[in-house]
Amino acid sequence: MAKQKKLKPVKLKGFQDYTPEVMKKRYEIMDAVRATSEASGFQMVGTPALEYAETLLGEGGETDKQVYKFEDNGGREVALRFDLTVPFARYASENFGSYPLPFKRAQIGNVWRAEKPQKGRYREFCQCDFDVIGVDSKFADLEVVLALSRTLSNLNFGSYTVSFGHRLILGGLLKHFLPDLMASQEGEKEALIAIDKLDKIGPEKVQVLLCKLEGVTEAGASDLMKVIMDGSSSETLSKIAELLSNDEEAREAVERTSFVVNEVNKFLEGKPGKAVIDLKIARGLAYYTGIVFETTMDDLPGFGSICSGGRYNNLCDRFSSRELPGVGGSIGLDRLIAGLSELNQISNDKRSGVYIIVASEEARSYALEICHQLRDAGIASDIDLKGQKMNKQFQAADKLSRAYAIAIGSNELEQKASRTVGLKDLNTGEQEALTIEDIVSKLRT
Amino acid sequence: MAKQKKLKPVKLKGFQDYTPEVMKKRYEIMDAVRATSEASGFQMVGTPALEYAETLLGEGGETDKQVYKFEDNGGREVALRFDLTVPFARYASENFGSYPLPFKRAQIGNVWRAEKPQKGRYREFCQCDFDVIGVDSKFADLEVVLALSRTLSNLNFGSYTVSFGHRLILGGLLKHFLPDLMASQEGEKEALIAIDKLDKIGPEKVQVLLCKLEGVTEAGASDLMKVIMDGSSSETLSKIAELLSNDEEAREAVERTSFVVNEVNKFLEGKPGKAVIDLKIARGLAYYTGIVFETTMDDLPGFGSICSGGRYNNLCDRFSSRELPGVGGSIGLDRLIAGLSELNQISNDKRSGVYIIVASEEARSYALEICHQLRDAGIASDIDLKGQKMNKQFQAADKLSRAYAIAIGSNELEQKASRTVGLKDLNTGEQEALTIEDIVSKLRT
Repeated sequence: MAKQKKLKPVKLKGFQDYTPEVMKKRYEIMDAVRATSEASGFQMVGTPALEYAETLLGEGGETDKQVYKFEDNGGREVALRFDLTVPFARYASENFGSYPLPFKRAQIGNVWRAEKPQKGRYREFCQCDFDVIGVDSKFADLEVVLALSRTLSNLNFGSYTVSFGHRLILGGLLKHFLPDLMASQEGEKEALIAIDKLDKIGPEKVQVLLCKLEGVTEAGASDLMKVIMDGSSSETLSKIAELLSNDEEAREAVERTSFVVNEVNKFLEGKPGKAVIDLKIARGLAYYTGIVFETTMDDLPGFGSICSGGRYNNLCDRFSSRELPGVGGSIGLDRLIAGLSELNQISNDKRSGVYIIVASEEARSYALEICHQLRDAGIASDIDLKGQKMNKQFQAADKLSRAYAIAIGSNELEQKASRTVGLKDLNTGEQEALTIEDIVSKLRT
Repeated sequence: MAKQKKLKPVKLKGFQDYTPEVMKKRYEIMDAVRATSEASGFQMVGTPALEYAETLLGEGGETDKQVYKFEDNGGREVALRFDLTVPFARYASENFGSYPLPFKRAQIGNVWRAEKPQKGRYREFCQCDFDVIGVDSKFADLEVVLALSRTLSNLNFGSYTVSFGHRLILGGLLKHFLPDLMASQEGEKEALIAIDKLDKIGPEKVQVLLCKLEGVTEAGASDLMKVIMDGSSSETLSKIAELLSNDEEAREAVERTSFVVNEVNKFLEGKPGKAVIDLKIARGLAYYTGIVFETTMDDLPGFGSICSGGRYNNLCDRFSSRELPGVGGSIGLDRLIAGLSELNQISNDKRSGVYIIVASEEARSYALEICHQLRDAGIASDIDLKGQKMNKQFQAADKLSRAYAIAIGSNELEQKASRTVGLKDLNTGEQEALTIEDIVSKLRT
């Protein structure tokens, strides 16, 4: 028979396997999200990975181009979700009346974007979301950021900074400093594109770009850049409030942003995080209408945001004429994992648990019984699966980083009534005779 | 401006939203799987939802037709995984050398099949897998079934039955009773298709179908059906072992199946499950080569399997000439949830947690501080998000099924130094004055 041609075992570009070490960290993060959702009264929900394409498209701005969409076997245009927020707007509209308002929901799930893979950016990644819908208030904005900050603080990976912007403050400043530019419809858009480049090219070059736009004066651009670059103190916010005292929308935005930043900082006292103002934050997604935020790890400058979000007051409008304003944010689990990996916070375990050595096959049933008992007590336990020689079994225990071995053979079987066996410490090589019950007491965590 | 046409907020057929009640049960099951994986030494891994289509296709038998496949933006033929086993074979081959052998792996993840939606059958569903690769032994077969049984028993939903078959036993019986049929290549396949209908049409009609096949004698078909229908006792297995004493493969299969069933039943003593033999079990997936099993809930006859699996010794062959025999099984989380729902085991919670009433806005910061303290202690707590009147806030507490309310206003703010507030029991309406620390002690679980 001709030898079968082998397939190459490879993943798609931009996709990841998760090894046991990484998986453990992933679950640790997900558990922290769930603990917050429980303590803070956010209810966990789930939605499908696939939706009608029209449900998803049109709200993601640039993201639209990255959506995995295709025709299913039934001829429907379907797409993999690119975030959890847009499907949640569908959920909220479809299930209206089945949940309390305001509705605090949390969700953990994978999303897909066909973007260029980069460090910490994958085509499949997991988002952990907290959202509040049904109320447009600074209290709801705060509640979401508190949930995210609680989760990040509990993960204890080091210090982080949550930076807040607000679309209406930036808009107000543009109107104030560049009134002639803002007279044209395209003006604001072009200015925002220029400002979005701040992190990459710096304020001088952004100012040059701004000055090239129609109706922009050098003095206006310079004053604007000064305010934006000085945006990290609450004094700046007061100054801006004064500047924009005639612009009611912008003033309310300043007040709201100050409230959130102050209360988050109170919550973060003694914790590893802090909240600041950074007016240049705009966020890529088209659906944001108010406060927006990003979160960076202080030990990884330039790494990018691990937790972002903002207010989206019109996202449910496409499904319903009901008012369902929302605010939400998302921890990017895979980005966070990539960050933790850079900080060497993902490591192999120390030795733990037990390996049951089957010293003779006649004793296997007894060995299994002991194995069940240890597992029942939550003590991680392996047992030989190959019927191999004892020295091979000790090698297996070592490879699995087990802390102890218990050998069960004809001697132990004879003494089954006493339930006494030998517990061997694989670090020290020392062995002591103990009953199984004593072993359970000793090793139970 | 013309009124925007609204999109209908609907899910795709065969897909589900998960409400908070269902989500809670889902996480309970996933946590039980994770607890077993920890105790029993199965390491959790993860693989992508999308793979190269050729990685997935060709191993699923009938399932191949149900795979969601499409061309991605880069022109690659890709597909959503239809199970976790085939991608794991890819993982095991791609990452060979990075894990210990035998490798005990567990995995929880969604899979997609475009099959006809039915009760408890969805196009997106979650599987919880336990597998052992790298060894072909009855000990490994047992280890997988023990992990699944441990998980199901710990979920405590009622009694269940794990039924075992073996492809080589059934094959041996066919060869023994219908030797002329088995001479033709198509014979075994046609006979298996007929036997697979047993549950639906009963043994008499299956016997009629068998007799229509070429080379089948009435006596042979009748004897075969007797043995298959009588397959639930271990005496039957001894009898079969005798019948097939010249067929070494089949004898080893009988011995292996007996061992697994006996040891699983020992483990299940005093637990709600049992293991039996059911030789007609064949399983739809093409990759099985040895022992196969299905699990049914005793209180839901006819509901179908909630946990299935088997041995697949050749699955990694397509990627590598290395020998990587495997055995695995999977809890169908969504089928199990559907079953639990039929048994009314998914219910709303009783009252729990606290709602912090903001009785005057000046006291909000103090109210938030108390809210943080309760949440820090793991006490589920909500706080007003709308700045609404007190009676509305009490209504909100009620809607959210909170057990207690704490109102914080100017009085409480004045007495902030004493940290004394009123804790109102929303069941009884009674209120007592307590310090926040006392409340934490009282409510902490």
